[in-house]
Amino acid sequence: MDKILRINMGGLKGPEVAIDTLGDYAGLGGRAMTSTIVAGEVPPLCHPLGKNNKLVIAPGMLSGSAAVMSGRISVGCKSPLTGGIKEANSGGQGAQVLARLGYAAIILEGKPLDDTLYKIIINQNGVTITPANELKMLGNYDLVSIINKEYGAKVACISIGPAGEMKMSAATVAFTDMEQRPTRHAGRGGVGAVMGAKGVKIIIMDDAGLKMRAPADLEKFRIANKLFSEGLKKHSVTGEGLPTFGTNVLTGVINEAGAFPTNNFSTGRFEGAAKISGEALAELENSRGGEGSATHGCHKGCIIRCSGTFTDKEGNFLTKQPEYETVWAHGANCGIDDLDTIAMLDRMDDDFGLDTIEMGATIGVAMEAGLAEFGDSKAAINLVKEVGKGTPLGRILGNGAAVTGQVFGVERVPVVKKQSMPAYDPRAVQGIAVTYATSPMGADHTAGYAVTANILGVGGNVDPLKPEGQVELSRNLQIATAAIDSTGMCLFIAFAILDQPETFQALVDLIGSFSGQKFTADDLTALGKSVLEKEIDFNIRAGFTAKDDRLPEFFSDEPLAPHDVVFKVSDEELDQVFNW
Amino acid sequence: MDKILRINMGGLKGPEVAIDTLGDYAGLGGRAMTSTIVAGEVPPLCHPLGKNNKLVIAPGMLSGSAAVMSGRISVGCKSPLTGGIKEANSGGQGAQVLARLGYAAIILEGKPLDDTLYKIIINQNGVTITPANELKMLGNYDLVSIINKEYGAKVACISIGPAGEMKMSAATVAFTDMEQRPTRHAGRGGVGAVMGAKGVKIIIMDDAGLKMRAPADLEKFRIANKLFSEGLKKHSVTGEGLPTFGTNVLTGVINEAGAFPTNNFSTGRFEGAAKISGEALAELENSRGGEGSATHGCHKGCIIRCSGTFTDKEGNFLTKQPEYETVWAHGANCGIDDLDTIAMLDRMDDDFGLDTIEMGATIGVAMEAGLAEFGDSKAAINLVKEVGKGTPLGRILGNGAAVTGQVFGVERVPVVKKQSMPAYDPRAVQGIAVTYATSPMGADHTAGYAVTANILGVGGNVDPLKPEGQVELSRNLQIATAAIDSTGMCLFIAFAILDQPETFQALVDLIGSFSGQKFTADDLTALGKSVLEKEIDFNIRAGFTAKDDRLPEFFSDEPLAPHDVVFKVSDEELDQVFNW
Repeated sequence: MDKILRINMGGLKGPEVAIDTLGDYAGLGGRAMTSTIVAGEVPPLCHPLGKNNKLVIAPGMLSGSAAVMSGRISVGCKSPLTGGIKEANSGGQGAQVLARLGYAAIILEGKPLDDTLYKIIINQNGVTITPANELKMLGNYDLVSIINKEYGAKVACISIGPAGEMKMSAATVAFTDMEQRPTRHAGRGGVGAVMGAKGVKIIIMDDAGLKMRAPADLEKFRIANKLFSEGLKKHSVTGEGLPTFGTNVLTGVINEAGAFPTNNFSTGRFEGAAKISGEALAELENSRGGEGSATHGCHKGCIIRCSGTFTDKEGNFLTKQPEYETVWAHGANCGIDDLDTIAMLDRMDDDFGLDTIEMGATIGVAMEAGLAEFGDSKAAINLVKEVGKGTPLGRILGNGAAVTGQVFGVERVPVVKKQSMPAYDPRAVQGIAVTYATSPMGADHTAGYAVTANILGVGGNVDPLKPEGQVELSRNLQIATAAIDSTGMCLFIAFAILDQPETFQALVDLIGSFSGQKFTADDLTALGKSVLEKEIDFNIRAGFTAKDDRLPEFFSDEPLAPHDVVFKVSDEELDQVFNW
Repeated sequence: MDKILRINMGGLKGPEVAIDTLGDYAGLGGRAMTSTIVAGEVPPLCHPLGKNNKLVIAPGMLSGSAAVMSGRISVGCKSPLTGGIKEANSGGQGAQVLARLGYAAIILEGKPLDDTLYKIIINQNGVTITPANELKMLGNYDLVSIINKEYGAKVACISIGPAGEMKMSAATVAFTDMEQRPTRHAGRGGVGAVMGAKGVKIIIMDDAGLKMRAPADLEKFRIANKLFSEGLKKHSVTGEGLPTFGTNVLTGVINEAGAFPTNNFSTGRFEGAAKISGEALAELENSRGGEGSATHGCHKGCIIRCSGTFTDKEGNFLTKQPEYETVWAHGANCGIDDLDTIAMLDRMDDDFGLDTIEMGATIGVAMEAGLAEFGDSKAAINLVKEVGKGTPLGRILGNGAAVTGQVFGVERVPVVKKQSMPAYDPRAVQGIAVTYATSPMGADHTAGYAVTANILGVGGNVDPLKPEGQVELSRNLQIATAAIDSTGMCLFIAFAILDQPETFQALVDLIGSFSGQKFTADDLTALGKSVLEKEIDFNIRAGFTAKDDRLPEFFSDEPLAPHDVVFKVSDEELDQVFNW
């Protein structure tokens, strides 16, 4: 990981490849890398789809090594959805393979002179870029299948579906998993639209002949990795809850807490929750047998293994086991209590290259606008089909909830910085509300997952219904998350490191022993703060102010059942989140 | 004009009427009234379509009096298009009639509990509000025709078409002219959507039995009015150019200057300009004879009489004589050189209740997106038909160029603060560019019409292609305009008062003699500054920053033919516009 692959897609004779040394970017990884490059190289007022935006893809600091859980990759740019800086994070094989190929980042820049679509092939011999117009408008599944036939079944792919080609603000960048399926997505903020605007359909990476990245201090690294693994296995969430039920273990918990946004954030409990819970999902998958009855990881080196496989009624693979956020977005938020429908929508989103959170929130807004009834599974599927086809209605929906709300004159639109809120009602989980409001990413649960102390009793306890303590909780989590997102570590390690000091220390030691440089807990905090500071500075230069760190007014006006609570953290408190 | 009509459309038992004294609003009119009320009463972060926004309709300080040209009315709110404060200004009979009825403002507030549509009738006996669901989705023409049958042909109407009911961001508030046609519109910023969100289809005003407003000092007023009238008649623009050819006299002038935005702002001269010029329009109208061969005013008391009538090939009334901005928007900007097409589009916009500038700019963007070819008249008409029908495509277009650009992934979108630019390319008229960039209204030529000194040689001469002097020019014009928009005077008086000191003094004396209070030129300047300060303060509280006072980057990157010029006023200079 000692070089940067910089590709100017706007070259007069076609794409121009440059392989740079790291320079000032040495030592950075993941979100620290993408946010540093975007903040430093992208003019904050540029058009997100124009020549001055850049798409940066960076594996984490530890990616490509033997460190468990180190397979996360960051995709950064100026977001077409929010207009601010964006880092969207994905699992899959991309991080490990790109890191082993030696690239700390891929930077796509410039604007193509025509509408030629390209594929980029990266292996130990170098980088090849060729026109690939035959791949135009293919879904991610067909695309990867064709690529596998040509390049073998061991390559890792980074791709966009039709949504990215159509430059939709809900478009994702897809990453293949260990089964060569495009099920892992840098989902949020329209990063796929920027890849589409650069004219790149797919990046095919082959690390054949290349080795794992070696730590500087092998012995210390091995010890830290062992302690870290043990810590993850002994924590109830990472050792038991996630492996058994996947992320959808949360449906029961959040619904019980009265924080499960239902029918476009109009109430906090969904009567169909039991039908779509993690328990129901596991039972359904097990009953269908075959591939669906086992859980597994999304990348090599994962030991939590929260992922699964969803087979249809005939026992054929349909999609990955839908994540909690997807089950909520396409389920409760649209009044839908049918897992087969939710799985079908998940498959379609992955195939078209769409953010499941944004799409579920958008369909909720469309239902509020009267385009369909809440609970109408068939209508929801048809709406997402429109997106794939790129009809005018599909173009609206594919650009997310904020645009859909404006186009149809809907007032109840659950977004911050135009990005849709995830699966926790901010009125009933006021810590996550602070994260939604203030994260430079827009509404994003992963940016500071206060559900931990608010609901799960992890890392302390803070009453979710009251404003007290939420700002501090969110602040600390946002700092920690910005750091973790830079390491390449899966965010789910947070459960164990928040509760177990020795597991936290093992993480710190993993980083230090890998780089061979002294690294302390304070360094991790400093890293997180520095990433956030760069992101916030970019947003300020892009015209954001404290006024953008606010929830839509209905969260302060309309009490949420069953707790009849409104959002109570004051503006003044929100403005203190980044005051450290 | 000693009272304010305040209607809460969100009353539990239906609309609640309150007739207030003026209080702190005494002495204000037009834009000063709407902006003061909006800035003082509307929470800047509220949803524009929600219960906390207010629609304020206010005649000017001199409206309803014998002062010539005093028939302008202001409509204000938080804009659904820009998210900032909005004052949209209209001619027609509304100002004079509302002023004679004694109301300095109508304020529509609150949010209806259901989707009942109402009509409001105001006459000397008071105010009546009744459900009028039978009027739902009527175009403005059919609507006014029905109302005239019921209420007589002398009422003045304020109404919305289907676009306002659908809460589109390009929706207007229509005002009837002297011929009882809904041809005059408070066009910009989606004020019609706010009226739609309040559930009001039409306000019917009958001033039968009421007199003109009397000046405090009749003698002085008469003298000033006479001098003022003489001044307008002797100036070449107001005495000759506008009466002869209407506003479309500008097509030849601006095209010759290389500043006529063509094919979505891609070049500065339109080869079909001669076919759509004011001269060609006058010739066509004269050749068809009848009503079309005469010009007239849009309201009683107008002596410039720049308006006309457009009859179709069979000699039947089709629409008002299209204004220059409309001829440009639906003509050159879409590559269309056919006056009958442009007139048809004008008629459709007026009927559906749509801003012709926003719609022309939007269709230009849609053409750039590939939805139709530039120059395709039939396609342009079909696109506007979609808006009237409210299809998904129509909903996109009806929400303006910024939304259309995002939905179709187009980069060349000529907007500031999401509002479309009017008919002067900012690269070739750099003074108007400063106004576009900095006006709190978003891109708006009427907010500070620097075309005067840049192109027309009115009020001095400032080279339109260079940055020097543009900030001062725009600043002074923005201040003067904010004041004029508060008086109820038609903005076209500016030509004469800029060039003729005695005409300017006559205006000042008109205001002073009417109110009976000392009023000087400095007071007019102070009024303009105070209005702008309130507007800017609202926008800051709504989250706007200097970053919103910028043109899209392509105006700095892409030279405009024929002068091969880019926008050159620096950001630092732009930030000095309101530094007085």
